Amino acid sequence: MLNIGILGCGRIGQVHAGSIAGLANARVSAVSDAFPAAAEALAASHNAQVSTTEQIIADPAIDAVVIGTPTDTHYDLIHQSARAGKAIFCEKPVDMSADRIRDCIKVVEENNVAFLTGFNRRFDPNFAHIQAAIRAGDIGDVEILTILSRDPSAPPVEYIKSSGGLFRDMMIHDLDMARFMLGEEITQVFAVGSSLVDPEIGKAGDVDTAAVTLTTASGRICQISNSRRATYGYDQRLEVHGSKGMLRAENLLENNVEMATADGFAKAPAQHFFLERYQAAYSVEMAHFVDSVLAGTPPAPSIHDGLQAQILADAAALSLETGAPVNL
Amino acid sequence: MLNIGILGCGRIGQVHAGSIAGLANARVSAVSDAFPAAAEALAASHNAQVSTTEQIIADPAIDAVVIGTPTDTHYDLIHQSARAGKAIFCEKPVDMSADRIRDCIKVVEENNVAFLTGFNRRFDPNFAHIQAAIRAGDIGDVEILTILSRDPSAPPVEYIKSSGGLFRDMMIHDLDMARFMLGEEITQVFAVGSSLVDPEIGKAGDVDTAAVTLTTASGRICQISNSRRATYGYDQRLEVHGSKGMLRAENLLENNVEMATADGFAKAPAQHFFLERYQAAYSVEMAHFVDSVLAGTPPAPSIHDGLQAQILADAAALSLETGAPVNL
Amino acid sequence: MLNIGILGCGRIGQVHAGSIAGLANARVSAVSDAFPAAAEALAASHNAQVSTTEQIIADPAIDAVVIGTPTDTHYDLIHQSARAGKAIFCEKPVDMSADRIRDCIKVVEENNVAFLTGFNRRFDPNFAHIQAAIRAGDIGDVEILTILSRDPSAPPVEYIKSSGGLFRDMMIHDLDMARFMLGEEITQVFAVGSSLVDPEIGKAGDVDTAAVTLTTASGRICQISNSRRATYGYDQRLEVHGSKGMLRAENLLENNVEMATADGFAKAPAQHFFLERYQAAYSVEMAHFVDSVLAGTPPAPSIHDGLQAQILADAAALSLETGAPVNL
Amino acid sequence: MLNIGILGCGRIGQVHAGSIAGLANARVSAVSDAFPAAAEALAASHNAQVSTTEQIIADPAIDAVVIGTPTDTHYDLIHQSARAGKAIFCEKPVDMSADRIRDCIKVVEENNVAFLTGFNRRFDPNFAHIQAAIRAGDIGDVEILTILSRDPSAPPVEYIKSSGGLFRDMMIHDLDMARFMLGEEITQVFAVGSSLVDPEIGKAGDVDTAAVTLTTASGRICQISNSRRATYGYDQRLEVHGSKGMLRAENLLENNVEMATADGFAKAPAQHFFLERYQAAYSVEMAHFVDSVLAGTPPAPSIHDGLQAQILADAAALSLETGAPVNL
Repeated sequence: MLNIGILGCGRIGQVHAGSIAGLANARVSAVSDAFPAAAEALAASHNAQVSTTEQIIADPAIDAVVIGTPTDTHYDLIHQSARAGKAIFCEKPVDMSADRIRDCIKVVEENNVAFLTGFNRRFDPNFAHIQAAIRAGDIGDVEILTILSRDPSAPPVEYIKSSGGLFRDMMIHDLDMARFMLGEEITQVFAVGSSLVDPEIGKAGDVDTAAVTLTTASGRICQISNSRRATYGYDQRLEVHGSKGMLRAENLLENNVEMATADGFAKAPAQHFFLERYQAAYSVEMAHFVDSVLAGTPPAPSIHDGLQAQILADAAALSLETGAPVNL
Repeated sequence: MLNIGILGCGRIGQVHAGSIAGLANARVSAVSDAFPAAAEALAASHNAQVSTTEQIIADPAIDAVVIGTPTDTHYDLIHQSARAGKAIFCEKPVDMSADRIRDCIKVVEENNVAFLTGFNRRFDPNFAHIQAAIRAGDIGDVEILTILSRDPSAPPVEYIKSSGGLFRDMMIHDLDMARFMLGEEITQVFAVGSSLVDPEIGKAGDVDTAAVTLTTASGRICQISNSRRATYGYDQRLEVHGSKGMLRAENLLENNVEMATADGFAKAPAQHFFLERYQAAYSVEMAHFVDSVLAGTPPAPSIHDGLQAQILADAAALSLETGAPVNL
Repeated sequence: MLNIGILGCGRIGQVHAGSIAGLANARVSAVSDAFPAAAEALAASHNAQVSTTEQIIADPAIDAVVIGTPTDTHYDLIHQSARAGKAIFCEKPVDMSADRIRDCIKVVEENNVAFLTGFNRRFDPNFAHIQAAIRAGDIGDVEILTILSRDPSAPPVEYIKSSGGLFRDMMIHDLDMARFMLGEEITQVFAVGSSLVDPEIGKAGDVDTAAVTLTTASGRICQISNSRRATYGYDQRLEVHGSKGMLRAENLLENNVEMATADGFAKAPAQHFFLERYQAAYSVEMAHFVDSVLAGTPPAPSIHDGLQAQILADAAALSLETGAPVNL
Repeated sequence: MLNIGILGCGRIGQVHAGSIAGLANARVSAVSDAFPAAAEALAASHNAQVSTTEQIIADPAIDAVVIGTPTDTHYDLIHQSARAGKAIFCEKPVDMSADRIRDCIKVVEENNVAFLTGFNRRFDPNFAHIQAAIRAGDIGDVEILTILSRDPSAPPVEYIKSSGGLFRDMMIHDLDMARFMLGEEITQVFAVGSSLVDPEIGKAGDVDTAAVTLTTASGRICQISNSRRATYGYDQRLEVHGSKGMLRAENLLENNVEMATADGFAKAPAQHFFLERYQAAYSVEMAHFVDSVLAGTPPAPSIHDGLQAQILADAAALSLETGAPVNL
């Protein structure tokens, strides 16, 4: 039984608490939040203690923490939790600065604590199935990876301004997925981008439509395209072309009913909300974290994976700025 | 090179002439029609002779005839053509009366001429692929056959009145398909039916919505359902459940483009027109007829298949009338 | 907050307890089982009391009971629970005898307690979506309903012997679904059946492959086919043909990945296990029960629905025995 | 009635002759080929004259020529045919050199003859439907175009050496398609490529796996990826993401039958052979050429389209060589 403290009782903290409640070998022991009411509500529905972040980190009965607080607090919470010997489940991004992530790696490794970077998409049953099939050799050598990823709608421009930009805020998930699928480190990044969805995003210095080409030392190629808006839902697809075949994952729809009328055959839109779309992924992710910590094996994606994704996002942003490919 | 005479230059005669034009080992030598203009137009586009039915049947240079004239003329044309030693491609139904088909069988067999009953759907590439897979044992023993067959829209009630009714006019195709797929003769027929599409059809003594259950001696089961109207096109599907698996054929759509919008994912309606839907089937059917005649092997479906389908249609009509299953 | 007692802690009792745990407005207060160990395990994981059935029914703090015990105990538990004023969630079938279900209806109505018959499939999101679309008029008038329902594999013949036969044990779900979708009571039942899957089932006097034709007063038609074995998983499909269009639900697969190789395009089998296949349905079902009881509105499907399905299953069995349609 | 001369009776000449035979308003009048036997066979099956290229071009009774000879002969044949006033249907590429294509444009324009560049894929019914839907505004403004294009298997390395390389030989089709769909000229090309399929291709100085990123002045983005080998057939897909929705075309399979077994659900591979895959496209292409010439309207794609595609292919090759994006 793993006793877990939830740091941050917002939307994502609630999701993780729900995942823990579904596990036989873990429980939500304590929760904390800057807003007491949020902590109280979450505690009540899970029969957990309302506490402070300091108390949770200091409590020897707590084995692990889930860090679901704002990104700029991750650095300190990781340092404190690692020093207190807690296993750490940290939401992505670990930090907006690669150098600060390197600091976090240092403290995590010095204190030898388990650490999982919350790239939830790796745990999506379909994406995970594809990665396992690749590893099993089902399609031979990976040659071309195509990732099509579009959000249902753009966030407010105010959010955009503090988000670090499309590459660090949105494409970072796809960049991590590329590493997960390619099975080889990326050596070059080339990015293009435009502001086609919302001119305010362009005025704020960001793009809302972008495409990246990644290559590896052995010549594997990955193409990613992003849009901040897809009228038909949260578009999350990928396919891997290999020497012996191809694997692909299509969108999950709101339901699977087909309706035929004089207009033709119609199905529902793709699931819109990321928490619904990745509900299964979040559950599997938490189960993997808990099982790993209890077994004493390192969970994945690691904090190094968190760093590599950030380095790729930085490289994509630099490529867009300079108009030239960036070699890593 | 097989020299073919086309008897009847209407819509179906034109289709068969077109199929012959695509073959390297056959040609349209002569055509006849009650309306001279129809014969002349077809002859011109195929560089063939305009002739009379009598001349075609009497012409020793003609090897085979395609009978595409009204059903009530089939009986005489089959008799004349068989006696003249022509190979015969006859549109379905051979005749509306099982007894008269038996007469035709007699003359065909006495004169030992090749005969193909035009159940075109057997030659649809998907249905033919399924039947070949069944025969190859891909799904083990056939257990349940499901045929979903709906026309895009009901014919005029005047047509209905002279059509012999839904079972003899429309479901006869499905009854032949059932025999083709089941691989065993049918021993019992139970039918239900209603007039839901057009009340005038009901007043004319026919049904426009019907379902039939067929069983065989070994216990195989087939369910067929028909409607005279499907808003989404010409609905032609079937599936076969066997001891080792299942095979099915879905509809062919007007195109394969998928459009995604806020309303969801949309595809085109099913192809509406039977000549478009079964274009490939008509071509393969004619190629099979020509190849069989040239090789001296019997084409299929035979005139016996034409008789059996008629017997099943009669049984379905009787079952609907009596409300009880009919044993064969 | 609805306090619920679980009567029977086997597989289905555990499923319902899990559904309750996911609800904010209900909780598992007490559980009972003939095997104390089963009750203790379920109580522990839900922080509930281990109790006896008698105590639960007598406890005024318990608002509702979930009856998940063997079918032959339902009759007494319904009587006791109704007299104690409990809301009742009863697994299907209510009882194997229509007359005994009528007794249960009497006691439920006399005591004016809420009652839900556990036809879980009505709550499957896809089937429920179809029924709602029908009710909304999206496809006009219902004309033909087709239900294809096959189990992954046949149960042991010992189970078959006490099951009441295929119609009462397996097809009863489809018969209820037919009533749910047709929107009109069924007036005639015709059944055929064979033993093709396992000859032992035939020797035990049952069939393992069956097809039923249902008709309503206005002429709507439903065809159902069942097999006790589908190599490709738990096959659960239906489609509704209406005057304005068609709605259908396809199978849910183990995952949605497509793999392309030289053999073609491949997807995973259908989900095999009914608890996995209908997991979402069970959750929605319990939520509906809890919400209805708390709101004081009658849950559905009602005990009358349980009776009607049993009457249809009895009629199908009689039709198979007599070889003739049975009018209701 | 358009009288057409076929120059070159190889595989593609035969395809075009077959398309013409299916048209009511055109006919194959004469054919020529360096190999007399090829010309004779094609003439026989179409009742046409065997002739020489010079005679065909000089014959005033011939309205149009189809140039299906080797690429290095196109330049002279275009000059001669244009000066003789023939309408010209020329296979792609017009020429391997952009400058030489500019010469051809000059002679075509000076002589004011109709000219169609044989980018057959524009006439594929699905791709054409997508382009028409874009033009109709169905998905709003085009933002991201994704083209996935893989050949079933790599050609012999000897062919590769004289092919002009992957960009000029294979991707040129996709580059033309990009122009067709984007609705705006391309201003930047960035290419990456590797030799992953056949090391001999790499030794010959070419790539067999490549990806290109195209951008337009308004910020539209296109990603193309190519492989010389796809085990599952001729992979030809594209999708267009727009401000109001998305359109996509999937592969055409060898048949549409689905087989379900314990391994899951299986469909046939994609059609392998380009003449089969694009059979419908070739027919529509020829019909468009004939109709345009008869109507006196310019056919499309024009010779300018042929030039632009060549310029893009050259730019892609240069980008691969230099490792930098190429601005146009």
